Amino acid sequence: MDVDLAIVGAGSAGMAAYKAAARHTNRIVVIEASGYGTVCARAGCMPSKLLIEAAHRAHAVRQAHRFGIQAVGARVDGAAVMARLRELRDHFVDSVIREVEAWPAAHRLVGRARFIGPCLLQVDDHMQVKARSVVLATGSRPVVPPEWRDGLGELLLTTDTVFELPTLPRSIAIIGGGAIGTEMAQAMSRLGVRVVWLMREDAPGGLKDPALRPLAIPLLSEGITLITRTQVRGMSQVDGSQARVEFDVTGGERGSTVVEKVLVCIGREPVLDGLDLDKAGLVLKDNKLQGHEDRSTRVGESCVFLAGDVSGAHPVLHEAVRDGLRAATQAVAQPGPPNHLPEAPLEGGRRTPLRIVFSDPQIAAVGRSHDELSRQPQPFVTGVADFTDQGRSRIRDMNRGALRVYVCRQRRVLLGAEMIGPCAEHLAHLLAWSIHQGQTIDALLDCPIYHPVVEEAVRTALGHARGQIAGQATARPTSPLSACTDMGIGL
Amino acid sequence: MDVDLAIVGAGSAGMAAYKAAARHTNRIVVIEASGYGTVCARAGCMPSKLLIEAAHRAHAVRQAHRFGIQAVGARVDGAAVMARLRELRDHFVDSVIREVEAWPAAHRLVGRARFIGPCLLQVDDHMQVKARSVVLATGSRPVVPPEWRDGLGELLLTTDTVFELPTLPRSIAIIGGGAIGTEMAQAMSRLGVRVVWLMREDAPGGLKDPALRPLAIPLLSEGITLITRTQVRGMSQVDGSQARVEFDVTGGERGSTVVEKVLVCIGREPVLDGLDLDKAGLVLKDNKLQGHEDRSTRVGESCVFLAGDVSGAHPVLHEAVRDGLRAATQAVAQPGPPNHLPEAPLEGGRRTPLRIVFSDPQIAAVGRSHDELSRQPQPFVTGVADFTDQGRSRIRDMNRGALRVYVCRQRRVLLGAEMIGPCAEHLAHLLAWSIHQGQTIDALLDCPIYHPVVEEAVRTALGHARGQIAGQATARPTSPLSACTDMGIGL
Repeated sequence: MDVDLAIVGAGSAGMAAYKAAARHTNRIVVIEASGYGTVCARAGCMPSKLLIEAAHRAHAVRQAHRFGIQAVGARVDGAAVMARLRELRDHFVDSVIREVEAWPAAHRLVGRARFIGPCLLQVDDHMQVKARSVVLATGSRPVVPPEWRDGLGELLLTTDTVFELPTLPRSIAIIGGGAIGTEMAQAMSRLGVRVVWLMREDAPGGLKDPALRPLAIPLLSEGITLITRTQVRGMSQVDGSQARVEFDVTGGERGSTVVEKVLVCIGREPVLDGLDLDKAGLVLKDNKLQGHEDRSTRVGESCVFLAGDVSGAHPVLHEAVRDGLRAATQAVAQPGPPNHLPEAPLEGGRRTPLRIVFSDPQIAAVGRSHDELSRQPQPFVTGVADFTDQGRSRIRDMNRGALRVYVCRQRRVLLGAEMIGPCAEHLAHLLAWSIHQGQTIDALLDCPIYHPVVEEAVRTALGHARGQIAGQATARPTSPLSACTDMGIGL
Repeated sequence: MDVDLAIVGAGSAGMAAYKAAARHTNRIVVIEASGYGTVCARAGCMPSKLLIEAAHRAHAVRQAHRFGIQAVGARVDGAAVMARLRELRDHFVDSVIREVEAWPAAHRLVGRARFIGPCLLQVDDHMQVKARSVVLATGSRPVVPPEWRDGLGELLLTTDTVFELPTLPRSIAIIGGGAIGTEMAQAMSRLGVRVVWLMREDAPGGLKDPALRPLAIPLLSEGITLITRTQVRGMSQVDGSQARVEFDVTGGERGSTVVEKVLVCIGREPVLDGLDLDKAGLVLKDNKLQGHEDRSTRVGESCVFLAGDVSGAHPVLHEAVRDGLRAATQAVAQPGPPNHLPEAPLEGGRRTPLRIVFSDPQIAAVGRSHDELSRQPQPFVTGVADFTDQGRSRIRDMNRGALRVYVCRQRRVLLGAEMIGPCAEHLAHLLAWSIHQGQTIDALLDCPIYHPVVEEAVRTALGHARGQIAGQATARPTSPLSACTDMGIGL
């Protein structure tokens, strides 16, 4: 088989790469080893949000009395929770599979690909594919230290297996304080599972702003046994049906816990084994391909492009899709005629970081982080909004957390923001779009904001930043009715 | 008393006017007749959202079983619902009052103001105020036909009285299909009140797009007796404790209903009586001041400026506040030295309409409406996103409704949008800011969107519009996983 472009992996990045390339050439093939369907749909974004939604609903029932609603006999039916999760999850997976299967059969190969030369792939034993370019989109998998897996066997879960549980466990240890650990610890706890949550640092959800980090722990650990700054020493089975986790804690103490299951979410690693990368002249070091720069797609001077989690850089869906588009576009265009280049926005490659943790309260980070900005000479001010007395947040009993926005003192543009608080997923989009467009705080403070909405906190924070730049006394009050009486435009 | 500026009314618009003017002059007075506190805090935005939140929570308990959470029953404790509402409402009112009372006493007069000459006010009997300019910010009140009030007495409620009920009524008739009627009908129904909802039109929540209007009725009338295209003929008491509402329905039929209370929300009217406006040389016609144009603040060539609901134009809080700022700024600056003008954004007076109805699903309208655009020669395309199969909306069991965006075919800028669907209050801000900034759909489609979020529907709608402008087949599929596989950037 001789093609312009071979794409290895039909996940989110590979699918995006295929669709971008298919506009330019018919000489294209997607090679998938392990069945269609994406991590996002099968074991990532979608099932995790489904579990979180059930947890949110259980919590809402328990909290209803605060609004004058007496809920009688709330009981979490673990099997029903997991059944709904899988039913809808399968619907999402099926729609991905249907989409791939609608592509021309000549564009699809099923089998395991490995390099047998630069730009030459062997697929299982039955086929060789010669390609002018190769997009590697083999994805990532959860990191699990082999000794943990050896110690626990089936009792050790990852996001690949936790959503297959027939019902909820009675107890679980969650290892890892990142986005997934944070989401799963809270969701499990709210669904009535006894949760022991272990993390190496003391910043759940990956918060970077030193003023926000201390807020997160009390907000996210309610009802959970949380042990921060800890390191797992070992895992073993007890009586064949329970898991013992042993760990060190600060100060040289040791601790252990016995639980039904252990969910390991300490990160994901690129899937690069079995590809015989050396045959393509590629060098793997520390599980990264040498010559591949963050945000480039091509590996060095080779004919190989990376897209999605395999690059190890930005393991979130919307980045994987963008990677896939860019990799395929470059892979097809660079050896081909330049008039096949798509419209500018695709090529721009500008990227405004956007991260969301779907906990309650949610965590979001957009643009440049506080520590990144602190390392740079460019002076910036931090505008703050405290949700404690924010009107709509109080109405909704969600008045917890804070928003911090970072503004360039000289150019007055919004550079970044981080928050833990209500509706963070929505405020994050408003802020990310503003950063992406290079908006000044003055332009943003002129934009309309309804009342009463949580978005008013954005205005409070931007107004606070503007006051500092103008040299006014720093803290403006964040009255719950600030919007009624003050449009935050620097009065 | 001789001042630069007299402000009549210390509501949201008057407070904003005071704060804007106080930057420029100390010769200023605010005259309030009936006690501090704003409509927003006392009888508008805040208590209505509190009732809606309680209703939302009751609904969430009833729906929990769909997520695997078994709640045997939800019992609404009407007295507790109203108690929480008033407790928090009073907190909001108090913080407004505290703010006003912190102003210098010399800037505040309590009493009823009326004109005794151009730029000359009599306050009760005790004081005359001569002002270079007057900002009228006397607000608005609910419209109630006198014969309805005569017929029902205390059984007739408005937003001024409904939040004072000690508990929820067993049944209520809601008259009016606007934002308030829509919010209150659904909230009351979800709180277990039997609701009869009467409206003259057939578009709840003021939806304008003819493709969205038919969606709204089934979505918003669940559990409610809704009678559209009807006109109330009369109201009377039955046995002193029940209210009978008689109405005409299409086709000449008549109907009637007997309920405990009747909530009238057919609009608000400016408070302009008792001001002796003729003494200031002003002419009132149809309850509007002659010479006052929408979005101007000055009335003709007079020294009188209008701010807030009293203008009869845009009775929402954030417009009232903006009005107050603009009126005071102009009132102070126009007779004064021009170097007192504040920064440009305040003066720009650009306004991007933004309306939200806090029902479930929510309704939002931003920028120019479908009918407004249809009357203009400029060609536009309508991009559509259907929430039925939108990923995150399905996860949250909120996959109802649609979003429609209007895009200028020639300039590719976003002109307006209307929607009924999940998270409309948040999508509305993203869209309103984009319209306010004059963004093209190409710039917007380059902005990051996380996954899985309801914001992905914005991309779907914008992508749909772009496809139409490019002359592609109109409808792109709105797959639930469209984001996993397609960034909506016109592939």
